[in-house]
Amino acid sequence: MTVQTKKRTNGVEVDRLHETVKAVKETSQLGLFTFHLANRWTDGAKNRSQVTSFQHQGQQVPHDSKFDFAADEPDVLLGADSAANPVEHLLHALASCVTTSMVYHAAARGISVERVESALEGDLDLRGFLGLDPTIRNGCQQIRLKLRVKANVDDDEFQALSNLGPTFSPVFESLRNGVPIQVEVERV
Amino acid sequence: MTVQTKKRTNGVEVDRLHETVKAVKETSQLGLFTFHLANRWTDGAKNRSQVTSFQHQGQQVPHDSKFDFAADEPDVLLGADSAANPVEHLLHALASCVTTSMVYHAAARGISVERVESALEGDLDLRGFLGLDPTIRNGCQQIRLKLRVKANVDDDEFQALSNLGPTFSPVFESLRNGVPIQVEVERV
Repeated sequence: MTVQTKKRTNGVEVDRLHETVKAVKETSQLGLFTFHLANRWTDGAKNRSQVTSFQHQGQQVPHDSKFDFAADEPDVLLGADSAANPVEHLLHALASCVTTSMVYHAAARGISVERVESALEGDLDLRGFLGLDPTIRNGCQQIRLKLRVKANVDDDEFQALSNLGPTFSPVFESLRNGVPIQVEVERV
Repeated sequence: MTVQTKKRTNGVEVDRLHETVKAVKETSQLGLFTFHLANRWTDGAKNRSQVTSFQHQGQQVPHDSKFDFAADEPDVLLGADSAANPVEHLLHALASCVTTSMVYHAAARGISVERVESALEGDLDLRGFLGLDPTIRNGCQQIRLKLRVKANVDDDEFQALSNLGPTFSPVFESLRNGVPIQVEVERV
């Protein structure tokens, strides 16, 4: 019996990572993903989303299990506080993407990361959402992302490592630069 | 014994909603919120976020319970597929925010909504994330948001109702127009 040990850096299979990079370089179609989700309003500030699959190269790929998440608002925002609110979910999307992007790109460069923690803050002025002042945006005024990283590298390598998350993260880039959003409303 | 019945439209306490609008109009400080979250990398594409409180008018307000969510990547993206990925969480943030914004603003206008469902899609080209082609962005190329809404209103009111979510949603506006993100990295 032969036991094959897959080489992992930061928990990422580096040989597969390099193969993926090579494959996408050769066949750009392999890089095309569409992620999707269905959401349903329950009551008040409560609604739930389900993720069951995604598209890769135009084909549906099922997830191993169904992911289901809720949203609500705290009492001061007239909700039941049964789940995180949409802005908190946005911060999770950003934190998780910056972290994974750093970890993967570090693995590709052979850099072992020992610890990544982040603390995120997003400022909101309700006057925007309530439409009380047209000079105040509805969205976040600013987001602050503080990363704490442990890695056994020299200072120059640490500097390079620090930049990997913000440089490559899809959610970071989407949120910093904005994304065209096409809206369609159907009456049922 | 007097039983006070709170008037609700779409599950939202409308009197409190109007009081909130009035209060924020009079005292802008009441509109200031900072949402925050802590994330910790586990292994590979896995990390977890925790939300325990938020800031309102500079004061910490605890949530009723602690919210904890995970992120991972599917197998084709070298993860263990144990949780939704960051882009899927981003779509949840967007869906939940547009829905709640529509429901609240409809309640403020006295419009009863019977059903709100949405289907969201976000396109990603991995060549951006992998740094293989500088002309391809890392982030989402486009997001498509399809709302299905049921409400007993005439066509003009339905048109106005349709626009409420995209017009007022903080996450929609953040994601469409972009947000300044301040990054700080600490070595531990």
